[in-house]
Amino acid sequence: MPYQQIINDTYHQIKSGKDEGEAASYIPELAKVDPENFGIHLITIDQQEFGIGDRYTQFSIQSIAKVLSLSLAFKLWGSKIWERVGVEPSGTAFNSLVQLELNKGIPRNPFNNGGALVIADMLVGEFKNPEAEFLRFIREINNDNKIDYNLSIAKSEKSVGYRNIAICNFIKSFGNVLNEPERVLDFYFTMCSLEMTCQELAQTFLFLADDHFRNTKGERILNMSKAKRVNALLQTCGFYDESGEFSFTVGLPGKSGVGGGIIAVFPDKYSIAVWSPKLNAKGNSYRGMKFLEAYTTKTESSIF
Amino acid sequence: MPYQQIINDTYHQIKSGKDEGEAASYIPELAKVDPENFGIHLITIDQQEFGIGDRYTQFSIQSIAKVLSLSLAFKLWGSKIWERVGVEPSGTAFNSLVQLELNKGIPRNPFNNGGALVIADMLVGEFKNPEAEFLRFIREINNDNKIDYNLSIAKSEKSVGYRNIAICNFIKSFGNVLNEPERVLDFYFTMCSLEMTCQELAQTFLFLADDHFRNTKGERILNMSKAKRVNALLQTCGFYDESGEFSFTVGLPGKSGVGGGIIAVFPDKYSIAVWSPKLNAKGNSYRGMKFLEAYTTKTESSIF
Amino acid sequence: MPYQQIINDTYHQIKSGKDEGEAASYIPELAKVDPENFGIHLITIDQQEFGIGDRYTQFSIQSIAKVLSLSLAFKLWGSKIWERVGVEPSGTAFNSLVQLELNKGIPRNPFNNGGALVIADMLVGEFKNPEAEFLRFIREINNDNKIDYNLSIAKSEKSVGYRNIAICNFIKSFGNVLNEPERVLDFYFTMCSLEMTCQELAQTFLFLADDHFRNTKGERILNMSKAKRVNALLQTCGFYDESGEFSFTVGLPGKSGVGGGIIAVFPDKYSIAVWSPKLNAKGNSYRGMKFLEAYTTKTESSIF
Amino acid sequence: MPYQQIINDTYHQIKSGKDEGEAASYIPELAKVDPENFGIHLITIDQQEFGIGDRYTQFSIQSIAKVLSLSLAFKLWGSKIWERVGVEPSGTAFNSLVQLELNKGIPRNPFNNGGALVIADMLVGEFKNPEAEFLRFIREINNDNKIDYNLSIAKSEKSVGYRNIAICNFIKSFGNVLNEPERVLDFYFTMCSLEMTCQELAQTFLFLADDHFRNTKGERILNMSKAKRVNALLQTCGFYDESGEFSFTVGLPGKSGVGGGIIAVFPDKYSIAVWSPKLNAKGNSYRGMKFLEAYTTKTESSIF
Repeated sequence: MPYQQIINDTYHQIKSGKDEGEAASYIPELAKVDPENFGIHLITIDQQEFGIGDRYTQFSIQSIAKVLSLSLAFKLWGSKIWERVGVEPSGTAFNSLVQLELNKGIPRNPFNNGGALVIADMLVGEFKNPEAEFLRFIREINNDNKIDYNLSIAKSEKSVGYRNIAICNFIKSFGNVLNEPERVLDFYFTMCSLEMTCQELAQTFLFLADDHFRNTKGERILNMSKAKRVNALLQTCGFYDESGEFSFTVGLPGKSGVGGGIIAVFPDKYSIAVWSPKLNAKGNSYRGMKFLEAYTTKTESSIF
Repeated sequence: MPYQQIINDTYHQIKSGKDEGEAASYIPELAKVDPENFGIHLITIDQQEFGIGDRYTQFSIQSIAKVLSLSLAFKLWGSKIWERVGVEPSGTAFNSLVQLELNKGIPRNPFNNGGALVIADMLVGEFKNPEAEFLRFIREINNDNKIDYNLSIAKSEKSVGYRNIAICNFIKSFGNVLNEPERVLDFYFTMCSLEMTCQELAQTFLFLADDHFRNTKGERILNMSKAKRVNALLQTCGFYDESGEFSFTVGLPGKSGVGGGIIAVFPDKYSIAVWSPKLNAKGNSYRGMKFLEAYTTKTESSIF
Repeated sequence: MPYQQIINDTYHQIKSGKDEGEAASYIPELAKVDPENFGIHLITIDQQEFGIGDRYTQFSIQSIAKVLSLSLAFKLWGSKIWERVGVEPSGTAFNSLVQLELNKGIPRNPFNNGGALVIADMLVGEFKNPEAEFLRFIREINNDNKIDYNLSIAKSEKSVGYRNIAICNFIKSFGNVLNEPERVLDFYFTMCSLEMTCQELAQTFLFLADDHFRNTKGERILNMSKAKRVNALLQTCGFYDESGEFSFTVGLPGKSGVGGGIIAVFPDKYSIAVWSPKLNAKGNSYRGMKFLEAYTTKTESSIF
Repeated sequence: MPYQQIINDTYHQIKSGKDEGEAASYIPELAKVDPENFGIHLITIDQQEFGIGDRYTQFSIQSIAKVLSLSLAFKLWGSKIWERVGVEPSGTAFNSLVQLELNKGIPRNPFNNGGALVIADMLVGEFKNPEAEFLRFIREINNDNKIDYNLSIAKSEKSVGYRNIAICNFIKSFGNVLNEPERVLDFYFTMCSLEMTCQELAQTFLFLADDHFRNTKGERILNMSKAKRVNALLQTCGFYDESGEFSFTVGLPGKSGVGGGIIAVFPDKYSIAVWSPKLNAKGNSYRGMKFLEAYTTKTESSIF
């Protein structure tokens, strides 16, 4: 089986090398996770599964959840959402606040924290219980009722989330957060506390690779045009200040989270989830990046 | 012929709509061009050609030339060039000077003016006559000796090019321009004055779509891995502050020039050049963007 | 009496001209104030008093309170406070967030909102009841127990104070706010809600003009060297983005508030308070600025 | 004589301490100057002179010349000059380019390089031979024909002046430099190459301290109102990113140059020039700053 063989080889190659990353430790809950975890899971659009390592252990997907909240909002309101958030890469983290100022509270894209907070605000405004609705949306994608929030992580994040509180209130001062910042932040931190295994993550994101994907109720998540646009956004904005680098070395749309997870999508082929908690200087999983670079090179997987 | 039919239909559809763009007029030579020109030319990797309109009229390719100078530098020195220029989108034009300051003279990517000037500096440092070498490189790609510089455009650009003079000297103050700024700027303005027809442009860029492309001497321009990386850079950085938008609506790697040209590449399929001089607010061809959006939607051409 | 005569003449001259300002209306309490109020009060260091107009009506001194909280902190901890806040003008409002980012949470000076929040944080950390201590400090300066907070204004400010909440949490994310942002913001909004008449304001600030000033307990507020430094800060940073302009046209250290008050100090001579609610584009009292420019020109009052 | 005694004492006190500065070495001509030079010269408005050390040795006054070119322009055109340059401090050096961008080429004040270049452009536009006219203006102030440019320093500065070339061309791109950047830069570098002794410098700047000052032709340089405004600008903008610090610790309007000179003005009292080549981290004379801080403290010289 070529896929499985290459995954195995690459896994062992990366695992035997030095892990130069540093696990996130700004909250105790994340610091508690064993930094040696390393798992990979790949699912093809015809439902074949491959993988190795700690791929059945749940971890905090963090910012990867932003792709799911965007997808829900895009499904609900279509291109109307682009009135309140842009589709352009934001350059450095440094610039995000300057650009919020220049753009009068319109975040550059839905994957930086400002943009994800505006999307969260939309969902908070729509649903009585956005936490429950968001969870239902995800569980319906892959019929998996074990997927859930980790509320102690959410609480921990909130207790030190001053930067996010700042960003949310800053956007509110421009009128682009409609609900109370406290409520929006609560949903945001909860949403980012979602826990999944590599397998669950790969399954959940298959709808971005497979044009014919249907959820458990037989519905499409996004039509083809919308799914392509989410992939385009992932390509240009999915890795903060390392988006160009990821696009350059891996060549697939993808998204990383501070918990050490990365999801990547090869349209019409497969979705792949990698998890290794230690992060590089830009905040993306060190081994995850290394694995995907080597794996996509060996398999000549690239959209380019 | 579906390709030709869709090109025709889309061409007429866009042509019959209002052109809301504004032709570049900051130099008389560009202002002289008839703004009603509108041409399309597509070449598949198996050398079929399709097109319509003013596709055999030469125009100033301007910033599109930056892709070719990058390709030459990448071919000559490989990944060493990334020590002096980055691979990340730069956010707004506004930020480019701030980011040059923060990054101590390392431009964010090779397609903003700062990055293209650093690439130009590398070529100026390598060749006795960089203008001749660069032209030879391009003519060898497609055996076309009619492709040439327009020196009166180059001179005109230079006479009002204060912003570029500023950027080049600013980078020089950080030590990341090694030659005299005046010499580097001369090459830069000359290089951007290249004139091509849509057909020539599409032919010239086929090497980014076709893994097996050879130039007139039987040599590869870039190996597959390098070509994919150039495409990745085009995807994230090819349209200045509209890179996300282009990626989002067109879904192909591409590059625009202030002369109204756009080149786009569908890897393993085709290259396509569009020309229409009137520019949208972001400085990209209004009709060119509209055409590519409609055409790629109809043909379901997207890397995503 | 020359002082009184010039005050009268200037008052009538300015009053008869058009008031091109716009009263602050972002909270109902400020919008309720009659925008036609216009009062002046001047006190010399030998306790002569002059004035005209609505000088015995209390108004919200807002940012002028920042000078008093700085004075209290400077008195308590001396130059140690400059470890957490700078003494440089901050350029535009626009820059304040960029500069906070670049300076890792150290505000440029104690009179922009960030700096005043850091000073507020110091006082919150020192006192069980900072609101009571701060009020006592002010009442002791001029034996005036009528000076008090307007808690409905404080509450109103807080209800729309998203920008300040953002700044405080942003600084907290760098570790330069030690207490809970919510507590610091509460004190900050209360502190800025102080109400004084022009007379009370001029009396309160006499300690910055008079080297021999003693409070009701016979104590100096600041020694001469410290008072001079506060004046120097007022000169360079007292009027946000119009500090240069005020220094340039009025030539005295001073501070404005969004309630329409301005206090100015002529060292070794007098303090003068002006109040007129309509603000110019930079957020400083339109008539207040006009009055002080005309008055200081006529009396040749300038530190330069 | 108290003035002389305090100057002597302070001079020896500072001289015996460690000089923690670093002499400017970016051009050989400045690096050649003996870094141990240390001179002070003070002139009162009634023409008494005091001083010590290397006060009769000429040195390059560099940016101090910007005050003289501003004074000439202000004399010639009055407040019209503020249409092309502001009167606000510019925050950090970092911000100058951002602010030029935001303010569309209007420099924040006449003492940052951008502002001085715009003033230089005005003089270049007015005079056939601006270098000769500017020199004549200065020589007429104090009847001193020994004052002259050092053309080898000017040439050296120009050969490495990429940052200034960048700024001048950047402003030109906004249309706020009217002449050819090359010509403006030539005058600018020549103007900054003026050499003076401490005595000549103190004499030259007496017109900012003395309301009754007349030049050799019996003319006033600036009327009182204009002189006060130049002093106000020196107070808020004279020391780049250390303007607040200088205002705070020295309390007098002043200006520094990269050659190690500082001029300070005590209105209605005296002007004082200090020279010591080694610079602190902000680019101002280390011993010069120390001397002025100690001297003004001992003599209680402060405008505040």
